Amino acid sequence: MAVGKVLFPVMPVVEGVSLGTAEAAIKKPGRRDLVVIEIAEGASVAGTFTRNAFCAAPVHVAKRHLVNGAPRFLVINTGNANAGTGDVGMRDAEATCAELGRLAGVPASAVLPFSTGVIGEPLPMDRLLDGLPVALASLSADGWQAAGEGIMTTDTRPKGATTTVEIGGRTVTINGVSKGAGMIKPNMATMLGFVATDASVDQVLLETLLREGVARSFNCITVDSDTSTNDACILIATGRGAKVTSDDDIARFREALDRILIELAQAIIRDGEGATKFVTLEVSEARTRQEALDVAFTVAHSPLVKTALYASDANWGRILAAVGRAPVDAFDVSRVVIDLGEVRLVEEGGRASSYTEEAGSAVMAGEEINIHIRLGRGEETATVWTSDLSHEYVSINADYRS
Amino acid sequence: MAVGKVLFPVMPVVEGVSLGTAEAAIKKPGRRDLVVIEIAEGASVAGTFTRNAFCAAPVHVAKRHLVNGAPRFLVINTGNANAGTGDVGMRDAEATCAELGRLAGVPASAVLPFSTGVIGEPLPMDRLLDGLPVALASLSADGWQAAGEGIMTTDTRPKGATTTVEIGGRTVTINGVSKGAGMIKPNMATMLGFVATDASVDQVLLETLLREGVARSFNCITVDSDTSTNDACILIATGRGAKVTSDDDIARFREALDRILIELAQAIIRDGEGATKFVTLEVSEARTRQEALDVAFTVAHSPLVKTALYASDANWGRILAAVGRAPVDAFDVSRVVIDLGEVRLVEEGGRASSYTEEAGSAVMAGEEINIHIRLGRGEETATVWTSDLSHEYVSINADYRS
Repeated sequence: MAVGKVLFPVMPVVEGVSLGTAEAAIKKPGRRDLVVIEIAEGASVAGTFTRNAFCAAPVHVAKRHLVNGAPRFLVINTGNANAGTGDVGMRDAEATCAELGRLAGVPASAVLPFSTGVIGEPLPMDRLLDGLPVALASLSADGWQAAGEGIMTTDTRPKGATTTVEIGGRTVTINGVSKGAGMIKPNMATMLGFVATDASVDQVLLETLLREGVARSFNCITVDSDTSTNDACILIATGRGAKVTSDDDIARFREALDRILIELAQAIIRDGEGATKFVTLEVSEARTRQEALDVAFTVAHSPLVKTALYASDANWGRILAAVGRAPVDAFDVSRVVIDLGEVRLVEEGGRASSYTEEAGSAVMAGEEINIHIRLGRGEETATVWTSDLSHEYVSINADYRS
Repeated sequence: MAVGKVLFPVMPVVEGVSLGTAEAAIKKPGRRDLVVIEIAEGASVAGTFTRNAFCAAPVHVAKRHLVNGAPRFLVINTGNANAGTGDVGMRDAEATCAELGRLAGVPASAVLPFSTGVIGEPLPMDRLLDGLPVALASLSADGWQAAGEGIMTTDTRPKGATTTVEIGGRTVTINGVSKGAGMIKPNMATMLGFVATDASVDQVLLETLLREGVARSFNCITVDSDTSTNDACILIATGRGAKVTSDDDIARFREALDRILIELAQAIIRDGEGATKFVTLEVSEARTRQEALDVAFTVAHSPLVKTALYASDANWGRILAAVGRAPVDAFDVSRVVIDLGEVRLVEEGGRASSYTEEAGSAVMAGEEINIHIRLGRGEETATVWTSDLSHEYVSINADYRS
């Protein structure tokens, strides 16, 4: 299941980025499961990674290679996460970088590895290494959709976003692809987002823009509260286009980048495992942003709220109970106001006097649901996106060995 | 669904406690839904209540009446939680106490009210008040099973536990009943537990014993991470039997009380909504008990772990990923050891070398699953009990307006 029909956009070229894929039969034959992304020399690259303490071998290697030098290639396999694989996993991730480096004539440390799929199985290294020359041979500036398909696991569709922005009188492009449908409660970024622009952006600025953008996009989505061992988001600025330097340029570029990150993050929720609803949870009037996030995630993770959403049941009592158990100090619940779309659900500690079941049910019948929770304590806000909890979610995760 | 066949025990009399029930048609006719418990004069009574900020009207009133005076009656209705009902809810809870007090010849402040069921609907006061004389007329020292049935909501069976302990050469009895199947992540106690003993226990000691016992029983269970607005646990010591004073007596009484509280808490998990597995999560070698609890609850709340349990899939990668995202500082995951029953799953950051799918699957095939997680950081421990996440859980909560 997935919410709405979303077509993969027509992606323009980003000068300095080429993408290639192969069918390496990593988990099963007959599908794209290996992606290579070539980055032109001189690009800036920033990355964010999972905070799961059990992070996967490729995350360790990618972080080290990113710090060490100037990345020239990303290599991504699906079908196997190379996580929980101990020393063997580390050697496999390093061997993948070494072989790609040898084939392409760059040092192993210029290759960042990424993996997604089943946890705890060793990588099928023979098949993976055999796929590398095939992926290299198919490198193309037009390879964005193929790359989006090549990183899918339980995703039902590839996820891409593109935009342009004027910088110094020139048009720069920002393209991105992402994947993910389950084990989605990113903490730094979600497995996997790859975003590239032809703009020229200073390395330190690029890292700041990615960190701040991810905090309001990938780190604000949740399907099932489970943080993956393999989350990563990479942002590439090839520098072939306009230079982002003035405060005005930075503001415009940031706005465009944030739009792409949010679009990619939302695409993951729309394709969340078993999702039948796309839910926007806005919390405002909080004392701190953390408090707003805590309330939003407590509601977003509540199985009772999620099953009520699945049933299209305007069960405001469950929302209220979830808000009430959020970790908020000295919480005066009589000040809480909850709106479902344009319909007031809760005020003064109970059901709003104007509320009718008919009005609530009309909103809940939609596929896209907005819930706005005002805490009446301050001025901070947070927005979190989530999906519902359906029979299909249980079926997918009771059947799929991930 | 429910795990295992558990019969309601034969409950002996607790001198000084009588229980009566009525069919008041609060949500629907033809079932016991109103319970009155009479407590003899001179008893000590301790209570713990939900920490949900949106706590229900009867919780407010019960806490106030408990502080004010010597409780003589508990009145419990199922089918309606009287939560999220604002001022009307407070007046209804107080009117219930006043009417029962009038009928029984005690002050309203000697009555503690409790409610469970749908959130946000006004109590049907006419039918509830009409039921009070019927419940009073049926008061009996043998009413424990009827009372256990009278507090059920989505429970599939009544839950009771009984034990005896020798105090000062005399046998004292401890009886208890509980209810609950969903919205179960108690924070103080779960809605609802009522425990009574004929022992004589000083009020301050009774409160301490209940608080400490609840911390290791009701506060260590979770079905779905949702804390109810109506949780409450009440402990009555009628004082008709032996006096608990010496350190030896206290230790013996505490051991017996803790056994009853744990048995009642576990009964809730065995009857958890949609439960097909009863899962014991033991975390040891933690630096602090809170750290052990944090890891245990992170695993217990993971939808991916819960669906794997439902599928009888020894998916150790999901357990490992959940442990890895628990809020633990400076976590060295290479020291973590995870056992599934007698089978070693994880050591040195990955799958144990001795592990086989066959051995793991054999353990997972059972209805009762033990998972032991050693953190290798200290000496503190915690044990948490939980159930799996099944299609039936989704069906129950997508259909039931609670």
